Amino acid sequence: MAGSPRRAASRRLQLPLLCLLLQGATAILFAVFVRYNHETDAALWRWGNHSNVDNEFYFRYPSFQDVHVMVFVGFGFLMAFLQRYGFSSLGFTFLLAAFALQWSTLVQGFLHSMHQGHIHVGVESMINADFCAGAVLISFGAVLGKTGPAQLLLMALLETVLFGINEFVLLSLLGVKDAGGSMTIHTFGAYFGLVLSRVLYRPQLEKSKHLQGSVYHSDLFAMIGTIFLWIFWPSFNSAPTTLGDGQHRTALNTYYSLTASTLGTFALSALVGEHGRLDMPILEAKFKVQDTCGVHNLHGMPGVLGALLGVLVAGLATHEAYGEGLDSVFPLVAAGQRTTASQAMHQLFGLFVTLTFASVGGGLGGLLLRLPFLGSPPDPQCYEDQVYWEVPGEHEDEAQGPLRAEEPDTRA
Amino acid sequence: MAGSPRRAASRRLQLPLLCLLLQGATAILFAVFVRYNHETDAALWRWGNHSNVDNEFYFRYPSFQDVHVMVFVGFGFLMAFLQRYGFSSLGFTFLLAAFALQWSTLVQGFLHSMHQGHIHVGVESMINADFCAGAVLISFGAVLGKTGPAQLLLMALLETVLFGINEFVLLSLLGVKDAGGSMTIHTFGAYFGLVLSRVLYRPQLEKSKHLQGSVYHSDLFAMIGTIFLWIFWPSFNSAPTTLGDGQHRTALNTYYSLTASTLGTFALSALVGEHGRLDMPILEAKFKVQDTCGVHNLHGMPGVLGALLGVLVAGLATHEAYGEGLDSVFPLVAAGQRTTASQAMHQLFGLFVTLTFASVGGGLGGLLLRLPFLGSPPDPQCYEDQVYWEVPGEHEDEAQGPLRAEEPDTRA
Amino acid sequence: MAGSPRRAASRRLQLPLLCLLLQGATAILFAVFVRYNHETDAALWRWGNHSNVDNEFYFRYPSFQDVHVMVFVGFGFLMAFLQRYGFSSLGFTFLLAAFALQWSTLVQGFLHSMHQGHIHVGVESMINADFCAGAVLISFGAVLGKTGPAQLLLMALLETVLFGINEFVLLSLLGVKDAGGSMTIHTFGAYFGLVLSRVLYRPQLEKSKHLQGSVYHSDLFAMIGTIFLWIFWPSFNSAPTTLGDGQHRTALNTYYSLTASTLGTFALSALVGEHGRLDMPILEAKFKVQDTCGVHNLHGMPGVLGALLGVLVAGLATHEAYGEGLDSVFPLVAAGQRTTASQAMHQLFGLFVTLTFASVGGGLGGLLLRLPFLGSPPDPQCYEDQVYWEVPGEHEDEAQGPLRAEEPDTRA
Repeated sequence: MAGSPRRAASRRLQLPLLCLLLQGATAILFAVFVRYNHETDAALWRWGNHSNVDNEFYFRYPSFQDVHVMVFVGFGFLMAFLQRYGFSSLGFTFLLAAFALQWSTLVQGFLHSMHQGHIHVGVESMINADFCAGAVLISFGAVLGKTGPAQLLLMALLETVLFGINEFVLLSLLGVKDAGGSMTIHTFGAYFGLVLSRVLYRPQLEKSKHLQGSVYHSDLFAMIGTIFLWIFWPSFNSAPTTLGDGQHRTALNTYYSLTASTLGTFALSALVGEHGRLDMPILEAKFKVQDTCGVHNLHGMPGVLGALLGVLVAGLATHEAYGEGLDSVFPLVAAGQRTTASQAMHQLFGLFVTLTFASVGGGLGGLLLRLPFLGSPPDPQCYEDQVYWEVPGEHEDEAQGPLRAEEPDTRA
Repeated sequence: MAGSPRRAASRRLQLPLLCLLLQGATAILFAVFVRYNHETDAALWRWGNHSNVDNEFYFRYPSFQDVHVMVFVGFGFLMAFLQRYGFSSLGFTFLLAAFALQWSTLVQGFLHSMHQGHIHVGVESMINADFCAGAVLISFGAVLGKTGPAQLLLMALLETVLFGINEFVLLSLLGVKDAGGSMTIHTFGAYFGLVLSRVLYRPQLEKSKHLQGSVYHSDLFAMIGTIFLWIFWPSFNSAPTTLGDGQHRTALNTYYSLTASTLGTFALSALVGEHGRLDMPILEAKFKVQDTCGVHNLHGMPGVLGALLGVLVAGLATHEAYGEGLDSVFPLVAAGQRTTASQAMHQLFGLFVTLTFASVGGGLGGLLLRLPFLGSPPDPQCYEDQVYWEVPGEHEDEAQGPLRAEEPDTRA
Repeated sequence: MAGSPRRAASRRLQLPLLCLLLQGATAILFAVFVRYNHETDAALWRWGNHSNVDNEFYFRYPSFQDVHVMVFVGFGFLMAFLQRYGFSSLGFTFLLAAFALQWSTLVQGFLHSMHQGHIHVGVESMINADFCAGAVLISFGAVLGKTGPAQLLLMALLETVLFGINEFVLLSLLGVKDAGGSMTIHTFGAYFGLVLSRVLYRPQLEKSKHLQGSVYHSDLFAMIGTIFLWIFWPSFNSAPTTLGDGQHRTALNTYYSLTASTLGTFALSALVGEHGRLDMPILEAKFKVQDTCGVHNLHGMPGVLGALLGVLVAGLATHEAYGEGLDSVFPLVAAGQRTTASQAMHQLFGLFVTLTFASVGGGLGGLLLRLPFLGSPPDPQCYEDQVYWEVPGEHEDEAQGPLRAEEPDTRA
């Protein structure tokens, strides 16, 4: 059931070796390059003679924890809708995110925040690392059930690098404003995953379509994920913004936008649903129906839409509306170095750059993951926990729920 | 299975139209009346030359997020105990709360915080909106399983208005102190829902009693809700109180009160339970057994009790106990405008006002919801997700858990 | 099914009486001894003329809430893996923690923070109480399924006292640094529970081994617990540390340590798992397999390891590394009262003291719990909710999931 003996033996060594290799390399790079920043380092902070209340920790840590919950609980459970793939959804979310958090600290550090040869870390680098992990998990959603853990780790390895470069180009080189991570997180993560999924396309997979469905209680788990993402979205959007009014305003805007879009979603869902019935909020429904797990609807389209709105907002930004605050929203416009029209064009170009990086990167990633020795799960074992996990009840009579259908019915 | 074709066609249009109408009207009212307050607005905040640390956001946002979790996760899962009504419990919680958050921002704004024709919003208005959503969900608990989404939206529309008026009368006109929302949230929400439920009484509903039960794993979901409500209660009570010692003290008092009442609940549950066995903490048990879902035990009685305790505390308040702090707890007493006895009488009158508003409002609401075109679910379809939701496995053989019992047993 | 009539009658009175007795005594002790501290008391705080932002509440409350979630959601769901013991796992977690929070406030207060005959409470005492509850729940994990609620309450009564004394000896007398509670929480809680479990050893229990297993969806619940513990661990470790850089650094270190150990865990799990398959992260797997629920692997071993690392770190601490911050990490070393070698020896001695207190205490606890009138569940009823809880579907045909196997199969 777990493939041929050789394949099993290969898998037995492949994942542990890859984990240990990646973790070992990461640890060495951390030891060489990563240092506490001046708010985390005992000597530097005390030397500065600061008041404790000024430590960035107290401004950002609560938001960080909310983002952290979204990444692990939100994304994890959102992907737990597949009836026989709950362990894998949660477990691989864990594995991918744990690796991406470390690896993106290094990548983002090299690109954004080298100080005399060192990467300085603190609560802001933790938030940024979680954002990158979010993008990786969005891509994971596009290939859910069709890829093994070793493949996924390699995907994360590549995607994190491209995520960092794209972010660097947009924020540092182009001076683009990316509110809520529309471009760098949602658009990038979605199209990277979609193109990668396209390259991995396997026509025979349509046959295991019945396994792609959900069951009543796995849908409730997915609902947990949706709710946690929804609740903490104001923290997600406001976590990295400028302190004070900026953070306050972003949280508030996200809060009201979410409530409005919820009523819209219900309206749409009831309108298009069979017999006027609702489906687990419609985006999630598409999430399941489509081959690509609906990452396109959930992150791709909204990300592009958000980016285009950003173009519009930049074009309309005035000193009257923002006052002194314009400085923190569009600093180059405030400083007179750019017109609002020019800022709008830069925003648009940023979207183009993101789509390019995501597509080319996803394509390369797909080719990489097709390397035969990586142990892609054979078609009939896609969407199945049993390939990778010890499933309770597997060897016993008490087999429950999802496994039930397989039991030979000896009563007849 | 989803009712007659005409009823289905009517439902198909009713809910989307109502959602779009309410959302459209709300959006227009927001555009006309709602503005950032001075801590959220970029221009106003920067102009004030404040230190970031003074922004109300940092004092209240963590509490707000906890309250937000309680409203969506706590109430949502608490109501997920019905065996075939999990999607509806969670989904309608989502829909109702999302609408109430927006609508109560407007209602509370018109009544409490108009500034030169505008409603000023910030983290405090977000907390207050969540409180109102909490009251609406308490009422939802009383009619759970017996009302459709369009009915529920109309209930929320009416209840939010009365909630705002009652709150205005108590806090602004009567100068009543309402610690933990005993009166404005729990008492009001419970009796509004109970009277409304009474008006909607349907004798035939006793027949679907078997559907009102829980199953093992739906009870575990309800337990998630209970635990989340319990954990974050200190934040709920302290979120809106005066900063500093007031917020600190309220959180602390709630924390220890909850622990003490937990032991009391276990004692009571073991004492009255069959064979001395425990029932999922007893309040929740009643929650199920009773026709009214136990909102009376869970919120109504405790709310009235809390209000009466408030009367007692007001009557006993002294300058010795509170020092300068009396000013923030009972300001009119501190200012010498009221004796403690007079404050106590005002508190008692506040309870009376709340019960009146809740009962009359709930009665009106019940009559409104009986309008025939609102598509109340027919008796045999109460407590069933399938009327409103696409349930996985419905058309397939893999039907799981709750649906199992309906499968024709073809093996015999 | 619930034992002989006499046993049932005895249980009916035992638990309620014990709850009321403990709660009554605790309430009286609170009334006599416990007072608000200067940041929680209205008169004291206002008198001090502080800025609100200086109130400890704003520095520690978000961390406190995270710890609170870990104790109730994390530990509760982690223990919910037993297929027929979900109600007990969650319910007894609730009961034990609610009692331990109050009782440890008293014990820790008497030992650590008496001020003129009074215990002063605030957000710090709340955090410390939650830590003690965490240790009690670790011990609960070792006897899960084999002890009744009255026994567990007595265990908590004894353990909390010893926890407080051990903590006092280590932190106050020996001047030991206990980062992340390695010794006082994890080591103490684990070995107290393990020795207690050993004393309660019942050879016949191996027969109900099949009930000690998990089922697919109970494993998902346990996964919720694991994830919540993982997410909030940075808050757990940083909640009680010195403000400013200390708290910031601790959160950061925990964050990266967890990510690294996750990859290590996956590697190990895939390496030792059958057919190279993963088991719900390996620590949890052991958690199940072993008689003792794996508390040894999950807390005991890591706690001892952490303590030994503390010895090493103390031995290597230098002024160069910590600067002025050394004062807050190893104050006695900073003050020149101890060499680093001496501090290291004190750390090692602290571990020895902890193991002694835990073992002797656990032994005494085990003897106490063997008192026959305490109503230990009979062997065949271990790991069964039905002894203590009204289980839905028990008397009906809709019996679901876990109960299914017991249904007489009348179809054959």
